[in-house]
Amino acid sequence: MLKAVLQTIDSRRQEIPSSLKDFLRIPSVSIDPNHTPDMQRCAQWLSEQLSAGGLDVKVMPTGGHPVVLAKNHHQPGRPTVLFYGHYDVQPPDPLELWTTPPFEPTVRGNALFARGAADDKGQVWAHVQAILAWQAQGGLPVNLIVLVEGEEEIGSEHLIDFVRANRDALAADVAVISDTNQFARGVPAITYGLRGLVYMEVTLTGAGHDLHSGLYGGAAPNPANLLCELLATLHGKQGRVAIPGFYDQVVALTAQERQMWRTLPMDEKAFSEELKIPATLGEAGFSTLERIWARPTCDINGLTSGYQGPGAKTVIPSKASAKVSMRLVPNQDSIAIRDAFTQTLRDRCPPGVSIDIVCHSHTPAALVPMHSPAMELAAEAVEIGFGIRPTLIRGGGSIPVVQLIKSILGIDTLLIGFGLPDDRVHSPNEKFDLDDLHNGARTAAALYERLARLEGVH
Amino acid sequence: MLKAVLQTIDSRRQEIPSSLKDFLRIPSVSIDPNHTPDMQRCAQWLSEQLSAGGLDVKVMPTGGHPVVLAKNHHQPGRPTVLFYGHYDVQPPDPLELWTTPPFEPTVRGNALFARGAADDKGQVWAHVQAILAWQAQGGLPVNLIVLVEGEEEIGSEHLIDFVRANRDALAADVAVISDTNQFARGVPAITYGLRGLVYMEVTLTGAGHDLHSGLYGGAAPNPANLLCELLATLHGKQGRVAIPGFYDQVVALTAQERQMWRTLPMDEKAFSEELKIPATLGEAGFSTLERIWARPTCDINGLTSGYQGPGAKTVIPSKASAKVSMRLVPNQDSIAIRDAFTQTLRDRCPPGVSIDIVCHSHTPAALVPMHSPAMELAAEAVEIGFGIRPTLIRGGGSIPVVQLIKSILGIDTLLIGFGLPDDRVHSPNEKFDLDDLHNGARTAAALYERLARLEGVH
Repeated sequence: MLKAVLQTIDSRRQEIPSSLKDFLRIPSVSIDPNHTPDMQRCAQWLSEQLSAGGLDVKVMPTGGHPVVLAKNHHQPGRPTVLFYGHYDVQPPDPLELWTTPPFEPTVRGNALFARGAADDKGQVWAHVQAILAWQAQGGLPVNLIVLVEGEEEIGSEHLIDFVRANRDALAADVAVISDTNQFARGVPAITYGLRGLVYMEVTLTGAGHDLHSGLYGGAAPNPANLLCELLATLHGKQGRVAIPGFYDQVVALTAQERQMWRTLPMDEKAFSEELKIPATLGEAGFSTLERIWARPTCDINGLTSGYQGPGAKTVIPSKASAKVSMRLVPNQDSIAIRDAFTQTLRDRCPPGVSIDIVCHSHTPAALVPMHSPAMELAAEAVEIGFGIRPTLIRGGGSIPVVQLIKSILGIDTLLIGFGLPDDRVHSPNEKFDLDDLHNGARTAAALYERLARLEGVH
Repeated sequence: MLKAVLQTIDSRRQEIPSSLKDFLRIPSVSIDPNHTPDMQRCAQWLSEQLSAGGLDVKVMPTGGHPVVLAKNHHQPGRPTVLFYGHYDVQPPDPLELWTTPPFEPTVRGNALFARGAADDKGQVWAHVQAILAWQAQGGLPVNLIVLVEGEEEIGSEHLIDFVRANRDALAADVAVISDTNQFARGVPAITYGLRGLVYMEVTLTGAGHDLHSGLYGGAAPNPANLLCELLATLHGKQGRVAIPGFYDQVVALTAQERQMWRTLPMDEKAFSEELKIPATLGEAGFSTLERIWARPTCDINGLTSGYQGPGAKTVIPSKASAKVSMRLVPNQDSIAIRDAFTQTLRDRCPPGVSIDIVCHSHTPAALVPMHSPAMELAAEAVEIGFGIRPTLIRGGGSIPVVQLIKSILGIDTLLIGFGLPDDRVHSPNEKFDLDDLHNGARTAAALYERLARLEGVH
């Protein structure tokens, strides 16, 4: 039966990117209130695609953007698989750096360029195509729940309540997410660990309005000067984060993991060249992969203060603010880190300015057992899809829903990424290779067949 | 004769603010290329006002915005006075903080609110009204040259060449500028010193595009982190600027000056309250006035990097930049300071990023002899205009043209400011008190009469 499904997918090789373009054309930028109608439209469009495959689909409201929830006809005795994805995308700015507009999907070479091409619409689309192919061949061999949300890029705030409220409807034996990537072209992978994220915003306020730097400079507090001084205290020597207690709960890497990662085909030179940097930079004593996969960070994501136009304006800014986020690793407690960050900056805030600290999101890191029946079945599926046995890797990003699924639904997630590290997710010229789209759909098709062999309890 | 001129000004008390509004309605924002036509229009409008008073006026092109140059009928044996002002204004942003739009001049209470109301259109207008009143009463008693430029707010770049090229036409015995302010309401003042300014822009560049902070965080250089760390090194303990050699040429205040300033009615509490800050903040060992008038500074005027919109976006910015300016005092060398700043930041720039440093402008501080015949005559004029003998103060701002006039034309400048420290120049809700406009015009009228007593050589 899988063979027929794979043939269906192969026969649709030209058609699949074309329908994905329709998905990508909808500018579902979850962070931007101007795009709220597009969010609804995108959810609706996706639900229609799944309906066409005979699934029972609902576009369900949340406190924010809607969730698309779909089910095939569930049969007793079959294992239940929860597929999670997201239809929202990151903002496309800076627009001027896109070769073709972010919401006008364009094929160049063997890749499809658009915001969301890889993160996550393209990967969701691979699953949808696998589902449609199975449905065309008599139906999926597992009980499937499809959950596609619209707030992943803004912290999945309303998904928590949604999953809690729909705990029974979402009960499953295993979860599947394709929102990571392969290790490299030709090195497909399953991800067994992800970092967490605490995203903060810090604002210092001095005078009630911007001041003339001549008339007041030297006597009035300058929140831009002070913000730089304050943020500079967040890192100590050798690239370590200088927040008291920050590393206390960090689980050290095992010798086995370090050894396993050392054997991966990691090309430091190509990595730097791709980023156009002279060399990587990070915490002393760790390799690039270790720094990204297993070490926590503290990165300023944005700075804003005073005059930012062309030329000169002699103001002492009234306010200076920074977006600062920390990537967490097992077993850092995201709430404790949020509080330590807040307390540390409050303690270090100099006189003359007031400090305001907001937390935009916080989620702990996730770690999935490397060895389990589901992992083995997933590895077989990837081998069918890509023709190569996958390697086991971690990822540096954060998918809060993995923790959410673990804590509320009590199940682990198979993180099977179809994209590539150079897909430029969150950046201009995001793309998804057409081969990966195709092999991803094949992998998803094989995965649903393999997971039917799991022992189901739901 | 002065009496009749002052009566003319008194009789026009209602009319003067009304015509000033026409001047203020022209959005002559020199920094913004979109306003280039407004610059030309503003210069033209001003030249017509002066022409109506019988002056010989030319709107003269420069490499940038035009200069308005006017002369009365010069008579041998009379001293020549060069009045300098500027018709350009600072950008009005942030617009949302204006109670009424910046280019729709509005009287509220006893003040006129608009961008440029005090800096410098309102003060120029006081002089123009004095000139027109004298011309209506038979003519000015001095040989007058009026020079009003359109690039003061952007560093007077093209004025240098203009003054050099027109050295003979601008030859005078003394210069007059009204672009400072009184010490306080009821405390008119003549300014005998101004700080200089070096305005720089620093940009750090890491990767070639913004990166996903999960996929790269920990291994990729973060120019926003590094910019904060770099800028934090610009200040050492006790509010001192930590650039090698920065204080080497600074002339220490004399005991006499410190004593003189201590007697000024400086209300620290009111100063802080006006700024809505808990307390002033600055270099240890100096009073607020000393910090503003006689100590150099280093202030960040703007910061920009990465994501600055609402909510969270997990990027490692490709670039981070800051506008940083230093106020200089006698005898700091502005070029040496510019070079020391540049070299210091280059030396301290960490690996992993490239650094780009641009100088937008540089001008040294200015100091005018406190005791001279011209200063005494100016003091008499202020007493006639405001009814109170002026005090001698310095200013914290910079008027590059004072140095320019000194170095090219070889003369000192009388800095007679009509505005108030709370006029919010460069800030939203800039205003000019109608009383100051009126008393300023009276002062200017008296000044031209008093300066006729100077011994002229031109």
